Amino acid sequence: MSNEGFVIKCKAAVAWEPNKPLVIEEIEVAPPQANEVRIKIVATGVCHTDLYHLFEGMNKDGFPVVLGHEGAGIIESVGPGVTEFQPGDAVIPLFISQCGDCRFCKSPKTNQAAERYDVMSLEDTRFTCKGKKVLQFLGTSTFSEYTVMNQIAVAKIDPAAPLDKVCLLGCGICTGYGAAVNTAKVCVLDAVGLAAVMGCYVAGAKRIIAVDINPEKFEKAKVFGANEFVNPKDYNKPINEVLFEMTNGGVDYSLECCGNVGVMRSALESCVKGWGVSVIVGWTDMHDFAARPIQLIAGRTWKGSLFGGFKSKDGVPEMVKAYLNKKIKLDEFITHKMTLAQVNDAIELMKHATIVKSL
Amino acid sequence: MSNEGFVIKCKAAVAWEPNKPLVIEEIEVAPPQANEVRIKIVATGVCHTDLYHLFEGMNKDGFPVVLGHEGAGIIESVGPGVTEFQPGDAVIPLFISQCGDCRFCKSPKTNQAAERYDVMSLEDTRFTCKGKKVLQFLGTSTFSEYTVMNQIAVAKIDPAAPLDKVCLLGCGICTGYGAAVNTAKVCVLDAVGLAAVMGCYVAGAKRIIAVDINPEKFEKAKVFGANEFVNPKDYNKPINEVLFEMTNGGVDYSLECCGNVGVMRSALESCVKGWGVSVIVGWTDMHDFAARPIQLIAGRTWKGSLFGGFKSKDGVPEMVKAYLNKKIKLDEFITHKMTLAQVNDAIELMKHATIVKSL
Repeated sequence: MSNEGFVIKCKAAVAWEPNKPLVIEEIEVAPPQANEVRIKIVATGVCHTDLYHLFEGMNKDGFPVVLGHEGAGIIESVGPGVTEFQPGDAVIPLFISQCGDCRFCKSPKTNQAAERYDVMSLEDTRFTCKGKKVLQFLGTSTFSEYTVMNQIAVAKIDPAAPLDKVCLLGCGICTGYGAAVNTAKVCVLDAVGLAAVMGCYVAGAKRIIAVDINPEKFEKAKVFGANEFVNPKDYNKPINEVLFEMTNGGVDYSLECCGNVGVMRSALESCVKGWGVSVIVGWTDMHDFAARPIQLIAGRTWKGSLFGGFKSKDGVPEMVKAYLNKKIKLDEFITHKMTLAQVNDAIELMKHATIVKSL
Repeated sequence: MSNEGFVIKCKAAVAWEPNKPLVIEEIEVAPPQANEVRIKIVATGVCHTDLYHLFEGMNKDGFPVVLGHEGAGIIESVGPGVTEFQPGDAVIPLFISQCGDCRFCKSPKTNQAAERYDVMSLEDTRFTCKGKKVLQFLGTSTFSEYTVMNQIAVAKIDPAAPLDKVCLLGCGICTGYGAAVNTAKVCVLDAVGLAAVMGCYVAGAKRIIAVDINPEKFEKAKVFGANEFVNPKDYNKPINEVLFEMTNGGVDYSLECCGNVGVMRSALESCVKGWGVSVIVGWTDMHDFAARPIQLIAGRTWKGSLFGGFKSKDGVPEMVKAYLNKKIKLDEFITHKMTLAQVNDAIELMKHATIVKSL
């Protein structure tokens, strides 16, 4: 029996308040409204941004909420006015939308749309639990069996794609890979960092130096194309000085992938004067990043990247194709597979950084 | 009688220690050594960087020193191995050299040479006063009737150029103009800022918004091409919010020209997300500049510019030509003409920021 037009009751991992374990609850998911689609989530990754919201973001208004923004699923039903999707379509929910009409979407210079679906407002969420509205994190909420999204934030993908692999393209892999695809060279290694290594490799960088305080990650980084590894703990001097010596004056590109403002500074200072470019990829917004003006005056450039610069609706299906054509790797990122009931175990694993990626 | 090969005794303004007036002294200028030239300085500007070294830089090892790095003059004599110059050539001393041979000089991406002639070391200076070695500021020291420089830091210019005008191309005007020449739009208005306005105008920017707390500067800014003026003192909110509203989300380019890390932050935050570029032009190195990571992650770029990005030996003669061909303005920058004996008056005028440029 179809649920089209009806409320669906399903399981979701609800974050009732900051710094507490998620609770598996039965929630009600309303039918899609105009221009919206309801998606059955088949697989989801756990990303640092989920943890950031739960443990660091300090945003009390952002709760209760269903986290998760790196998923893949199947369209269950569509609201009025939706012609692009129909039930059964394989899709990836997008945490940045692509409306196609605003000056940002029309410009090739950026992937950021004028409208953003961050945490939906209390009025906008389609989730209810125990009579309370529950927010949709980044508009997506993939830690739920079903979610509802505006069609401008959903990418239709090749139905042949394995959803338990390509879900990673919903955030981390595109973010790191895209940021690096213009030949970047220094990476800190979580999954985003490994994806950045892969981006450097695919873009043809000859020398890819991975930097991490966990030496176990080098073997994994090699899989994605790194050919040198530096552990800052092995040196008594700042890592930028180490990299300066290794590279005769600094690297051409550096990527900061761990969301640490100290590492952002080191990454900039690791760049060669004259033309070095440092890209901030890791998400954090609790503290300022900083450096001395001479670092930029000497010819370095500091940039940032959100979702790897990919236009979301255009880019994700292309990345799915690249995976199906074996141009990029995804399977190698996945270290654990777990059920929704194990979501807190997955979060613990990620907090202690012993793993690369849990689904 | 020629002084070639002999020590020249001449007047120079010596800064014996930080935060003290300069003293007009008789100094001895040694003959040029291998690959060096001795220059008779005909005119020099006073630049904020001179004041920065004297009043803010806190570098006690940088004294005694002869300041000045924005001059023009005539070759008096040349050392062994110099074939590019001969006595009588009109030249502009350069505070960044262009050797032509290093990987930086060979790259079109940067104007920064591997060798830099900052304050010469005590061993390298050609100045002596009262038996003491006196440093050459930025390797140039144009607050002296004569100076000695390596030929890789000297530009030969059209002999038809008026030296009391084109001396400005030795620093401030190239710095601001070059930084802006890729259509920048927001400027703080000292001479560098006005030159940046001129760069925006020549580059074809339609809307050039000048920002300064001194409303008197708007008339001057209009001369160089600004068509809007914003005085932060006229508003009760941050200037970046004012600019956001004026421009429907921020400017495409912003230039910080006053060497203030707070203004650097405002200039970045005044840029539109997605593709906005903010350029640090003003020199300071006493404090960090800073911002929230989201500013860059949202697609903004933070860059810097030294000497406007001009390759020094190539760029300065071209700018002299542009002036002689009336493509750029120089005369309009000059508000006062003074003698070397009045150097402390010129410094006072500049400190109180009531003027644009003293020669």
